[in-house]
Parts: sequence; C-alpha cells; structure tokens
Amino acid sequence: MAGNSFGSLFRVTTFGESHGPAVGVVIDGCPPRLPLVVEEIQRELDRRRPGQSAITTQRREPDQVEILSGMHEGLTTGTPLAMLVRNQDMRSGDYDEMKTKFRPSHADYTYKAKYGIRSWQGGGRASARETVGRVAAGAVARQLLATVGGGGGGAGASVGAGARPVDIVAWVERVADIEATVDPDTVTRDAVDANIVRCPEAATAERMIERIDAARKAGDSLGGVVAAVARGVPPGLGEPVFDKLEADLAKAMLSLPAAKGFEIGSGFAGTLLTGSQHNDPFYDAGGRVRTRSNRSGGVQGGISNGEHIFVRVAFKPTATILREQQTVDEDGHDTTIKARGRHDPCVLPRAIPIVEAMLALVLADHFLRQRGQCG
Amino acid sequence: MAGNSFGSLFRVTTFGESHGPAVGVVIDGCPPRLPLVVEEIQRELDRRRPGQSAITTQRREPDQVEILSGMHEGLTTGTPLAMLVRNQDMRSGDYDEMKTKFRPSHADYTYKAKYGIRSWQGGGRASARETVGRVAAGAVARQLLATVGGGGGGAGASVGAGARPVDIVAWVERVADIEATVDPDTVTRDAVDANIVRCPEAATAERMIERIDAARKAGDSLGGVVAAVARGVPPGLGEPVFDKLEADLAKAMLSLPAAKGFEIGSGFAGTLLTGSQHNDPFYDAGGRVRTRSNRSGGVQGGISNGEHIFVRVAFKPTATILREQQTVDEDGHDTTIKARGRHDPCVLPRAIPIVEAMLALVLADHFLRQRGQCG
Amino acid sequence: MAGNSFGSLFRVTTFGESHGPAVGVVIDGCPPRLPLVVEEIQRELDRRRPGQSAITTQRREPDQVEILSGMHEGLTTGTPLAMLVRNQDMRSGDYDEMKTKFRPSHADYTYKAKYGIRSWQGGGRASARETVGRVAAGAVARQLLATVGGGGGGAGASVGAGARPVDIVAWVERVADIEATVDPDTVTRDAVDANIVRCPEAATAERMIERIDAARKAGDSLGGVVAAVARGVPPGLGEPVFDKLEADLAKAMLSLPAAKGFEIGSGFAGTLLTGSQHNDPFYDAGGRVRTRSNRSGGVQGGISNGEHIFVRVAFKPTATILREQQTVDEDGHDTTIKARGRHDPCVLPRAIPIVEAMLALVLADHFLRQRGQCG
Amino acid sequence: MAGNSFGSLFRVTTFGESHGPAVGVVIDGCPPRLPLVVEEIQRELDRRRPGQSAITTQRREPDQVEILSGMHEGLTTGTPLAMLVRNQDMRSGDYDEMKTKFRPSHADYTYKAKYGIRSWQGGGRASARETVGRVAAGAVARQLLATVGGGGGGAGASVGAGARPVDIVAWVERVADIEATVDPDTVTRDAVDANIVRCPEAATAERMIERIDAARKAGDSLGGVVAAVARGVPPGLGEPVFDKLEADLAKAMLSLPAAKGFEIGSGFAGTLLTGSQHNDPFYDAGGRVRTRSNRSGGVQGGISNGEHIFVRVAFKPTATILREQQTVDEDGHDTTIKARGRHDPCVLPRAIPIVEAMLALVLADHFLRQRGQCG
Repeated sequence: MAGNSFGSLFRVTTFGESHGPAVGVVIDGCPPRLPLVVEEIQRELDRRRPGQSAITTQRREPDQVEILSGMHEGLTTGTPLAMLVRNQDMRSGDYDEMKTKFRPSHADYTYKAKYGIRSWQGGGRASARETVGRVAAGAVARQLLATVGGGGGGAGASVGAGARPVDIVAWVERVADIEATVDPDTVTRDAVDANIVRCPEAATAERMIERIDAARKAGDSLGGVVAAVARGVPPGLGEPVFDKLEADLAKAMLSLPAAKGFEIGSGFAGTLLTGSQHNDPFYDAGGRVRTRSNRSGGVQGGISNGEHIFVRVAFKPTATILREQQTVDEDGHDTTIKARGRHDPCVLPRAIPIVEAMLALVLADHFLRQRGQCG
Repeated sequence: MAGNSFGSLFRVTTFGESHGPAVGVVIDGCPPRLPLVVEEIQRELDRRRPGQSAITTQRREPDQVEILSGMHEGLTTGTPLAMLVRNQDMRSGDYDEMKTKFRPSHADYTYKAKYGIRSWQGGGRASARETVGRVAAGAVARQLLATVGGGGGGAGASVGAGARPVDIVAWVERVADIEATVDPDTVTRDAVDANIVRCPEAATAERMIERIDAARKAGDSLGGVVAAVARGVPPGLGEPVFDKLEADLAKAMLSLPAAKGFEIGSGFAGTLLTGSQHNDPFYDAGGRVRTRSNRSGGVQGGISNGEHIFVRVAFKPTATILREQQTVDEDGHDTTIKARGRHDPCVLPRAIPIVEAMLALVLADHFLRQRGQCG
Repeated sequence: MAGNSFGSLFRVTTFGESHGPAVGVVIDGCPPRLPLVVEEIQRELDRRRPGQSAITTQRREPDQVEILSGMHEGLTTGTPLAMLVRNQDMRSGDYDEMKTKFRPSHADYTYKAKYGIRSWQGGGRASARETVGRVAAGAVARQLLATVGGGGGGAGASVGAGARPVDIVAWVERVADIEATVDPDTVTRDAVDANIVRCPEAATAERMIERIDAARKAGDSLGGVVAAVARGVPPGLGEPVFDKLEADLAKAMLSLPAAKGFEIGSGFAGTLLTGSQHNDPFYDAGGRVRTRSNRSGGVQGGISNGEHIFVRVAFKPTATILREQQTVDEDGHDTTIKARGRHDPCVLPRAIPIVEAMLALVLADHFLRQRGQCG
Repeated sequence: MAGNSFGSLFRVTTFGESHGPAVGVVIDGCPPRLPLVVEEIQRELDRRRPGQSAITTQRREPDQVEILSGMHEGLTTGTPLAMLVRNQDMRSGDYDEMKTKFRPSHADYTYKAKYGIRSWQGGGRASARETVGRVAAGAVARQLLATVGGGGGGAGASVGAGARPVDIVAWVERVADIEATVDPDTVTRDAVDANIVRCPEAATAERMIERIDAARKAGDSLGGVVAAVARGVPPGLGEPVFDKLEADLAKAMLSLPAAKGFEIGSGFAGTLLTGSQHNDPFYDAGGRVRTRSNRSGGVQGGISNGEHIFVRVAFKPTATILREQQTVDEDGHDTTIKARGRHDPCVLPRAIPIVEAMLALVLADHFLRQRGQCG
C-alpha cells in the first residue's frame, strides 16, 4: 500500500534510489514459457538512459540489466522476474546544497513532510532513475503483448486470436509551443528514434532541439506533450467501473515524474463538440465491427473496442533548473537555491520509452485480467 | 480484480445495474467512532439525483439511502458500512431497440465484446446509476475528512492536527466553449448550487443553461470541463511512485462515465511555460512552509504540500442522443439507431457531486495510508 | 484492508451485523455467462440456517436470499453479484447484560480494544450470521466449479477439460472424543445430510447427537473436528510461495468463528512418519500421473496435483454458554456473567455448509488465477 | 496475484531460485525513521543458513545480505527496502536425474502441471532458499515490533504505548515422537539456540539430534512440530472477519515448505474440552484486563487480546530422501528415483528463524493496519 507496485495480475514492484547501490524491479505474474529476449529489455533501457545526446542529462550510466530470477533456458518460468541495474555515476557533491534546502516544485519538501527523512542526494526515490525498473518491466510486457492481438485493422476479434500483434509507439508531439502533426495510424518507432528529441516530424524536431538547447544554455527548462498509440489491442480489455482502461492509463501516466495532464481520444478538445459530432459511428468492416472515427481513443465504457488506443500526456518543465530561485531551508527560513548537477533541460525525449512502458504494463495486466475472468 | 472496488484502506465496492432491483456500496475500512450524519449522505444523493431540473434526465428516482450495517447509535463501528438505494423508475420499453443494436460511443458493444452478455436495459452497469454508490461513499469520506486538517492556509502542518478541516468544492468551469473564471481559493458550495448548471458565475451559468437547453431540444448533447478544489489538505498525503496523489486522482476521475481528460495544477497549459516561470517558490509563511504560486496544484512528487489540491476533468458530450445515427446490430450488420429514453443532454451539472465524491475518496484513503505507514 | 474481503479474482466482500437490518455479500469477478440456479444458493443457506434441529440455536431466520445485481435472464453478467438476506428474529433483550460485560473467550473485549466501540447485541459482526454471505457466495463458487474439472480419477488433466466436475463434501468427523471413520473418496452429501449432526456414520452420529443434547441441557457446549474433501480438482491450482493452496485454505478455515486448527493431508499425525513412509509414490494411471497414497492431501509445493484435496478443521466448544462465568465489565472490574439468548451448543453441524463454502471460494479463486496467468 | 507477496501494509515480495544468481526480497511499506541494525538481519540469515551443523544440509552458503535501497544513514526512509543474497554453492550436477523425473511428494510434478516448465535444478523456486527473503524481511519486522508493545504482562494496553516490546521465540517442540515440554511464558531465544536442534529442553534435544542423525545415515528424513510465541503484543491487532489474526498466521505458516498443520492456542486438543472448561476467564489485573488461562492463544474473534500469541506448526518429513522411490518421468512412464544432493534430514532446526520471521511479518502488518484504520 506504499505505492511501489503497479498492476494486478502482471504486477511490478520497483525499488532503488538515485544515489543508492542499485535500482530494479520485480515482476510477479508474468505468464510462463514466454521467450524473453534480454537484448530487447536492454535496448529499451538504452533508449531511457541518461547521457544519450546533447539535450539530455550528462550523467553517464551504462544501465546494464541483470536478470536475477524467473528465467530458465530463455523462457519465463512463471515465477518472479527480478531485474537489477547498478548505479555507477553518482556525484553526491552536486547535491550538497539540497541537503538543507528544498528545490521549488521538486519533491524535496513533500518527502520530508511525509516521512520526516529523505535521501536528499539526487532526489532519492523521486529521481527519474526509479523509472529504470518501469522500462525494464515494460519491455517484458511488450514481449508478452507481441503474442496477443486481434484489434486495430486485423480480421480477428477475440483475445489471443488476432492477426496483428499489439504494438506501441510514443512520440514527442509538442515542446513548449512547437507542435508536430503525426498520424497515429502509421507512425513508427524508427521514425521516432530518427532524431534525438524523438519527434517523428523531422523539421519540427529540428526546431524543438534548438529550443531545448537554448533553454539548457539559459539554465532553464521546457515542458511539452507526449502522444502514444497502441495498435492491435483486442476488444474487451478493461474493467468497466473503477478500473476502466482509461482510468488505469491515466493513473499510469500521472504516476510519471513531471506529468500534469492526461487525455484519451478527443480529450479536452472533444468537449467542444456536440454528441452528434463526437460519437464514433460503428460499421461492418467485412465481418468485423469497427468505428469510422476514433474520438473514443479505442476505449468505450472503460473497455477497449479494437480501435487504436490513443493517449496524450502533459509534462511540465523540469523543476530542477540552474538558476537562483527563492525557497526555504529545512528550518523553514527563507533562502535561495541554485541547483548544480546534471539535469535534463526537457524530460520529453527520455520520457518516450517510459510512456511506452507504462502503456505496455497496463495492457499486459488487463490482458491477463480479461483471460482470468472471462476465459 | 474485476474493478468494482476503489481505494486501499478506505475501500469502496459498488454494485448494481440501472434496471436491476438496487444499486449500492460497501465501504470497508472506515475508521470507527466517526459520528455519521445520514442526512448529509442523503443530501449528496439528492444533488446527484436525476430529475432535478429541466436540463437533466427526467427519470424520477427518490434515491433514498438505507444504511444496512456498520453503524451503532450514530457512530461508525469500523465494520463494513453497506448502503442500499432501490431503483424505482425503470422503463425498459425505452430500450427495446438497444437490445439488438449498439449505441455509438456507448459501452454496449464493448460489454458484449468483453463478457459475451450484457444487461442492455438502461446501460446496465455502464449506467450513471452506478455512481449512486460512489456519491454515498464519498459523503462518508467527506465526513471523515472534516475531522482532518492542517493545510491550505491554516497554521498546523501535521496530519490530524490542522486548524482547518478539509473541504471540497467542484463546479462547472466550461460547457462547450462557454467558460467561467472562478477562484478556487474562495469558491463555495452554496455558490455552485445557486443555479441548476452548477457554475458559480451567475451570468455564465445562464448562458450555459440556454446552450444546454438548445442542445436538448435539438436531440443533441454537450460536454465540458469540471474543476475541483480540496482545501485544508495536510502535507504528506500520497505515495511517491505509482500511487502518487495525482495518479490516484487521475484514475478516480477517468473512472467516471464520459471522462476523457484530467489535469492537475497547471495541466496542459503549464507545458507552455519554462521551468523558471512554472516553479512555485517556497516561502516562510509565519512558521509554515508555503508556495507563492500553485502551479503544482497542491502536489509535488506525488505528495500533497499543504496547498490547495486543484484538478480539472474533461467530460465528452453524452453519447446517447435522440438523433438517428449509423451503427451495427449484434450480428455485425450495418443499421441505424435513434435512442429513446430519458438522458442528460449534458452530464456536467450532475457530475459535480460525483467529482467531489471521488476527490473525497482518494483523500480519505491516502489519509489512512499515511497514518498507517508513518503514524 | 479491514479484512471483510476474501479472494483475489473471485473476490467476495461480506457485510452486516447480527442485529442490524441485513447481512449480505458482493462477489466481484464472477465469470460471465454462468447459469446460476438461485435455488441452489437458497438450499445452502437453508443448510446453514439457525433453528434447523434440536441441537442448533432456536433463532428463527428464514434467511431468504435476494439477488440485487449481476444476473440477466438466469446468467451471470460478469458484474458484481450482490446478495442480501434480511435479519428478522432479533431479540436484543437477551443481550442486555452483554452491553456492559465481556463474555469470556468471545470477541466482546477484543472488539472494544480494537475499535473503542462495539455492536454488542448478538455479537454484532462477530456473530455467525456473518457467514450467511460466505455461504451464499460459496454456492455461486460451487456452481462455477461444477463447470471445471479434470482431476481426481478422471482422464483429463488440464484446467477446464476434465471429465469430472469438482465436487465438495464436508462432514463432522469428531464431536468431543466421539469420532467417525469416513472414506473421503466415497462420502456423499446425502449421507452427510442424513442426520442432524451431519456425520455420515449413522451410529456415531447418534452418539454425537446424544452428547450434544446433554451438553445443551447442562448449559454447556462442545467442540470437534470437521473434515472436508474436494474431488475432481485439476492439477495446477495454487500459487507456489505465499499463496500456496494449503495456505489459502488454512486462512479460509481459520477465518471461521471458533476455528482453532487446520490440517491438510496427513497433518499433525504425518509428522510421526519418516520420509520414506510419508512420501506418495507417483505412478502411471493409464496415461495420467497419479499417486498411490495421498498423505499430501492433494497438494504438493502449494499446487494441486489432481488427487483429492483433503483438510480438517478444529472448532473449539462454543464460547457462549448458559453458565455463570468469571469476567470483567467495561470498566475493567471483576464480575460474573451468565449468558442468555439462543446459542448453538456445538457449532459443527451448521459449520458443514460454511466449511464447504470456504473450500469452494478458495478453489474458484485459484481456478481463475491459474487461467489468468497460465492461460 | 501470483502469490510472491505477503502482507498488506508491511508488504514483502520475494524472488529468486535455488540455482539462479540470487534470492532476495523487497519490503514495501516499512515505516520511515526506523533505526535498522543490518547485523541483526544478518544474524537471522545465519540462523537459517545451510551447513550450520551435522544435522542440516551441507550446502555452503555465506548468505551475506546486501541492502540495495530504502536506508539513509542507518534509518529506513519509508521507501522500498530491497535486500539481496547471492547464491554461491550450487551443484547442478546433483540434480541431473531430476531433470526428467519427478521426486515424490516434492513440487516437481505440480510446477510442471501448473507452468508447463520448471527450473529443475535444486527445486527452483520451491527450494527452501526462497525463505532467505522471508527471514531478512522478518528481521526488519522484528526491529519494527521492538518499538511497539503493551500486552502480555505489561501495564499499558494501547498500541505503541506498551511497557514491554513485542518479542518472538520459536522452538522445536517435537521431532517424530520425541516431545519437549516448554513454557511459552519464559522460553528464551538463547535457550533455543543453545543446541543445534533448537529444542530448549537439553535432554530432549539430545535425543532428537540422535534420532535425526540416525535418519540421515539411513538416507531417510523426519518431521515434527514447531511451537512459537509472541509476547507483548498489544490488544486490538487483527481484522475480525477474513483477516483474523489467526487466519493470517495460519496462512503464513502453511505457506512454508513442508508445513501440513497449524494450531492456535488449544488447537485440536481443545476440541476435547467443554465450553466451561475451555473458556478463558477475564479478570482485573491491577487495572488491566487479562485472562486466567490462555486457551485462546492470545486471540479472540480474530483480534489479539494482549495475552501471548501461541501457535504450533506441523512439518512433514523432508520429501527429498536418498533412497530409491517409485515415481514417473516427464513422459508419465513408471520409473524409480534416488535423490542425490545435499538435503536436510529434518527441516525443523532451520525452520525456527523462518517461523519467527513469518510471525513477525504478520504482526508488523497488522500493527500498521490497526494504526491506519483506528489511529
């Protein structure tokens, strides 16, 4: 109940602080006999890794994953899959000032208020390093989902019987006010990874990179919006009341550091339409029920309808900036702080594999839940 | 795991269909010895009830609550608090067409895809009647929270010791493109309830009502945005990783019928600012740590900081409209449907007590969680 | 977390006090499209009902079940199945003395210590009336299990594919020192229900009845042992570490009022054997793996092996007796108490349907869990 | 839901196989600011370690614990406490025969039936090495409980306010038919650890050791009974319905490898008494409510009453023996097997720290649960 686990049947528990010995994750409930490619897990960790480019933090972490349990001769065994990543490039000296002062809009003060103690180096548990475990687990979930399919344009409609495996792509849609127009039906991961800001529209990506670089040089930071799509999701996933698919997705995304907003399908913009404009008409697509538009974002009444799941996540500008700011110290006295250390001037490029991981975790969990209750 | 429960320590389970005998809720984990005013529960149900005004559905339900267990001489006993509301004004005839056809953007098709069976009358479990249980439980949570306090302008800072009890107010901020400007620091529930659309800005409320009425006459529907604030929340509530306070709030709100988006604090608009613009500076407010702005929405790193919790929820236009729409039947063949029955042309006015209830449920749960782990 | 729910995927939540308006249960997670015979639920409630015979409490309760939700035209819908039973024959006057005094070895004192308040009439939540909800839910679980099979002598071995549906029988094995010898492979429910003490060995049953009647007349009470078998359970149910099948069974049984001990298979007596005597040899039973003996009780390493699940539960003598006993009052002062009211002189005959219900609930839950994770 | 976690608020998740790289545990929910003595964790692991004496398995494992997260300058931080122990002395060669044959009464067959795959070396997850994580977590729980108290002879009665901290002692009460008589009120851990069989009655311990040694030489194994007591437990712990304290204890104990039975208080023997003989009279012990006898085992109605919690656990003789036994191979054909490898001829001496750990985990969890709901 202390909130370090996520999911019901495909259940992950992360652990580890920024400046402790290691970060990691335990997955409990992974189906047995899944062929698991460790290189794919590592590839996702590489995409999340700091120090990838000029616009991310320069902390150098190889983030090499070690599988501690749950595999046997390349297959999952159904028992807990534990994965460990050692921390290496820690510079506690950068954080001396944070020992006694609270960074504005960071978690320093609230951890102290909650626990009466905090691992102040590097943000401790509030550090984005916690997401290492999420990404590793998400890479397993993704491999599980690749064995499932049936929605989004294929012919099949029942869980597990689909012609098209589930695939998931996220991208940077907007940085500050620089926005890309991307087609969720066709965007590919290769297009996303083609540049360091992970916006699949090349010209827009250039402008985003320049803007981030300018903010970095100014000791400031930027926010923006990540979009993500899951294609090939079979109809029937999601529990219709509290654990609606969109509810669990909203929770997943708002559990990410710096997330401030979430939309599914038409989101806030859809509220400007009338019902007759907004509704997605059903039609017979050669023996399969489909909708002509997808303002629902692939979910109706909390349950997937076989169309593409489409979500957006708002990320605020990074709280830790290299400028002097007003704050208080641990004794509650007014003071100022100017962060040192290595920080992302914009979290969005590195958020891409994390958003994808959370999307995969939610879908994998609901796939098992659906199979458990409904067979 | 079938998703009809919400919360960890203050845990509610709802049950009941639109056209079954009853709807209700069981609360497990309510602290003992809480003086419970049943009239306050009934008052919230009355605010949610259909048939309140010209702009809501005309279904007539008294929605009288019966306490089945968990109270003794006016106090909670710590054992399950079960509450029951009988359904009365059901007209199944209105739903005959829906027996074999799927309403667009409603849950008819997805329930069928998930379960292979559906209670087609009135939407069954997908009906907004399910929220009766949420509102009843939320009214209990609110009474619990009234015994807690310490944030938002008071002097105290520790859980349970505050000078100011937690209070919660939600209001209609926008209908279609008609938007009100409301101060979350001062808005009152009386101001909200002063008109039938529940927008505390009287002139704007008039325009909203006219617009909704026009949509109703046109057999169409409208969406919009609800805003909500919780004041007096002590610092320290929320679990810092997956169960961040904003994550659980996002889940709570996206679990509501017709919800498509969620924001906390600055939300999507905040992504247009730089970090130096966005960060909330801390200052010493006479011995208490406060922030000069509240773009964080009262939460930092997943944990409340004592400022006002502020959220927004996007609701799409009601899916059930009285116009002919393209759809398919249960055999997957193209057809058309034109709903009959009594439906809200805009869910927002009745969503107010429901949003407040979900906010109260999340806070009550996290209050108990904090007390459990941190004493 | 307040402990009124049981099970993970087939999850039941009970509510209600002895002298409140009603008792009941909500099942969340029941598979959809299960044909549900309400008469079978009622029949189990009738078996549990007070006032059945001269050796049970004379409280008169019809215990008529009302299905509030979760069914549609005779089938489960996959949504919460809520069931309600109204309390009728309450005589609070019998409990006046208990308002201020604690009955020895009853829950009066501990409820007060825990909650600071108690529904003192009839034991409140600690009353055996709470088990009404368990029995109703168990009757649903049993109908679900009747669609599952494959172990215990049939030819099939995989979940859901078995030739023999799961069936469950419990019986009174011992009352005080009067013990029956019953073959778990062949015992039938009819044989159990053939007499009022529910011991399938007729001559022994006579002696038990006489002994209970003598205790009743003496204002005293008796304990004993219930045995139970589940036949036809497919191999593979149970989670191998904390949620071993025997662990969940032990919890299920020890959660019953008056239970003090639990055994699976050889139990305590098996500790007197050596490993070579105790181990159950495997053999090829015409293409199916079976064991020649069943000291394991149908479970190895926490997982069912297809043999009969066999358990025993010890029930202490009823705490409420009609004799004067030493105790203290609510102020902690020494006093005496002599219970009035209508109580079972021996809980075992009425415990039979309750033990069967708990066994069914555990198996139904693990069946869904196995299907969820392993397909 | 795959059963590798235990507890609600003090929640542990174990991972790791016998012949994988490591075993370990994550504790989520440990209160912050608890001074944690790592040496005490190590000491408990040393008590559990193989190769301690002539009557335990000769596998040589240093079982050195590494704290991966959740501590800061000697105090817990409230974030997940992850602990890792590397496996070192693995001899897979000993298990070649087990690759294709099922050991009788072991988990080989059932794992295969459940998962369709198994880590056959050393029993994989079914190995007693899994309990390393339990013991490490239990040692943390014990340090938490040492800060709590109030029952069992002290003057205080409310949680956290007691004069006497909770202390827990387990011992070997019986090996085969050799039984010791030990006073649970006075037994000390030093007396238990005074000999290698961990029976505090020296003469009886001698006889047990001789018997175990004889079984070992004969390639056979023995079972027996472990007893355990928790003293100083405050009244009010335990949830009164499904999560009764004795129910969670029963589950905890039956989740241990080789456990076949559980008793609390008078257990099976108590069923031979009448109610008037069995009930524990209350009396005024100088302002504190106590009972003159303790047949309840410290729990009434599922809730602790401040008296000593007393339980017994039956362990069957070790399944893996060095004698030829009848079994089947993975193809289901009859064959024989004769185990090699290093196995405990009697699990009881090493079960002592494990039983204590489980007892501590249950109590720590219920302490937090009580604080969460009831303050």
